[in-house]
Amino acid sequence: MPANLNVVPFVSVDHMMKLVLGVGVERFLVELAFYIEEDFRRWALFDKTPRVASHSSDGVIELMPTSDGQLYGFKYVNGHPKNTRDGRQTVTAFGVLADVGSGYPMLLSEMTMLTALRTAATSAMAAKYLAAAGSDCMAIIGNGAQAEFQALAFKALIGVSKLRLYDIDRAASQKCMNNLAGLGFDIAICGSAQEAVAGAHIITTVTADKRSATILTDNMVGVGIHINAVGGDCPGKTELHRDILLRSDIFVEYAPQSRIEGEIQQLDSAYPVVELWEVILGQAAGRANASQITLFDSVGFAIEDFSALRYVRDQLERTGFYEKLDLLADPDETRDLFGMLMRAKV
Amino acid sequence: MPANLNVVPFVSVDHMMKLVLGVGVERFLVELAFYIEEDFRRWALFDKTPRVASHSSDGVIELMPTSDGQLYGFKYVNGHPKNTRDGRQTVTAFGVLADVGSGYPMLLSEMTMLTALRTAATSAMAAKYLAAAGSDCMAIIGNGAQAEFQALAFKALIGVSKLRLYDIDRAASQKCMNNLAGLGFDIAICGSAQEAVAGAHIITTVTADKRSATILTDNMVGVGIHINAVGGDCPGKTELHRDILLRSDIFVEYAPQSRIEGEIQQLDSAYPVVELWEVILGQAAGRANASQITLFDSVGFAIEDFSALRYVRDQLERTGFYEKLDLLADPDETRDLFGMLMRAKV
Repeated sequence: MPANLNVVPFVSVDHMMKLVLGVGVERFLVELAFYIEEDFRRWALFDKTPRVASHSSDGVIELMPTSDGQLYGFKYVNGHPKNTRDGRQTVTAFGVLADVGSGYPMLLSEMTMLTALRTAATSAMAAKYLAAAGSDCMAIIGNGAQAEFQALAFKALIGVSKLRLYDIDRAASQKCMNNLAGLGFDIAICGSAQEAVAGAHIITTVTADKRSATILTDNMVGVGIHINAVGGDCPGKTELHRDILLRSDIFVEYAPQSRIEGEIQQLDSAYPVVELWEVILGQAAGRANASQITLFDSVGFAIEDFSALRYVRDQLERTGFYEKLDLLADPDETRDLFGMLMRAKV
Repeated sequence: MPANLNVVPFVSVDHMMKLVLGVGVERFLVELAFYIEEDFRRWALFDKTPRVASHSSDGVIELMPTSDGQLYGFKYVNGHPKNTRDGRQTVTAFGVLADVGSGYPMLLSEMTMLTALRTAATSAMAAKYLAAAGSDCMAIIGNGAQAEFQALAFKALIGVSKLRLYDIDRAASQKCMNNLAGLGFDIAICGSAQEAVAGAHIITTVTADKRSATILTDNMVGVGIHINAVGGDCPGKTELHRDILLRSDIFVEYAPQSRIEGEIQQLDSAYPVVELWEVILGQAAGRANASQITLFDSVGFAIEDFSALRYVRDQLERTGFYEKLDLLADPDETRDLFGMLMRAKV
């Protein structure tokens, strides 16, 4: 690792892709899920600051900081639905990991790719506790940027091997099927959401619709199903009919945030939900029986980003997939910042 | 400027120094002060979010965001007094400027050097409105990292040419004098703060003492003086005896923050102070007469960092002093993040 105090390692998009491919996508997801689970076990240690949002008519820019007392991390993330019109991404992100003891940044990383990976890893980690044993068939409703990551995370962590894809745009399902070809799935493209959920043990909803849509209606959800609800993740954006919520046992990352951003924004603010860390620590039950409907109402939480940055940091030395950024002024004598500037004259 | 959507310009410490030296330190300070003043004139437009602080036993890490509705900026800054023990800086910083319309970052910059410059530029800009006409002699009490920047900003913006330096460590004063040699000052190193203020029209206090110290006592401040109080900038850290505040007309950046962090933490929370932007816009009086004591209680505000990032951004194209960071994933087809990853396999 860089010995010079002015240098901060930087993981570019290109280096992130090399890192993911070097480790292998599935192994990366498994190891990342392990880091997330490890941090969820230490839940009480974390500083759970609300995100700091700057809203405008076109979108939002958010800073998501957290700390475990040893490390500090934050993610910068935007959400601008109109961006796709001029070829930009709706969501982009980058993040920083820093040492709490010195306040010095230790890592700057792209997080657009990394967020897609951590979202999928978190979903599959939750399903490990919540899906019925032997669940190997998953419907994915919404086949956009997150779909393949979800598929591979569920394959790697709980053994999903059959996929039933549906998207209002069939080209998206085709893209997803093509991308996953040869990766060990039995894949069917379906003509409706109703058709997609037939025979599935797990239903992943991950559409990009910006309204309160009803991707799933109550009649589509049979007994014993695990629902992985990923797409309903901000105020005014939900995917499930409220009746489904009332029949499910609901699990969330961090209730105060999920009640604002998740599917449960449709419910009373006192409606009982379980935080996932409680299940992981054995303080609350996960799946109790085969007929129960479980629902993981995913919105994405700062600790998951923290875990992802921590995981990436731990790969740097071995892989060398980073650049050295000259980010921090480091004068020879602390008080002599001006002298450092003058000595830079050539 | 970079045409590729994945690229964000990055100004390293080295490029920042080249930029400052290329423009010239004094001209840089004048132009930067102009940008800050321009933004203070647009005060009402800005989102004035409080800083988001993460405290630990060793220090603090803060995010300081703001936006004018067109641009969004934030600064990451730490404060760790113990850092100097192992050769690290007490304070380091970096910042990001982004486009509110798309949420895309437009600039990542070092800000340790830039913060020193913007602090000095803000002080001198305030003195333009608050110091008595013809003020050309300034005492600087505390001759650490900020001292030379203050001296040059006051020279460039209001014509200070005589400096009276005092520091409890004479080596610091000597360092300051050496660094400023040949830059057009008449400089005296003094044996006490009392000696330093004799004959000065402006008193700048910029010590690093982390307690509530009394760098200036009431008897040391004569009529007509402008006090530029820079070092008292966080809870529990002040430099002036309370009696001085009671004799002065007090000007601050943003009262809600200054009442917590500035010299005025010593006063009642309703004590009348004037925000600098009111003076700049002519909505409040600055200096009204030659005998008045004016006090600029500087703590550093997010808008100044925003102005500094904006200024640096505007120099990039002309100077080329930046690198191109591959920070944002930009798949050919927005929904095909996974395909982008797969195609990165060689």
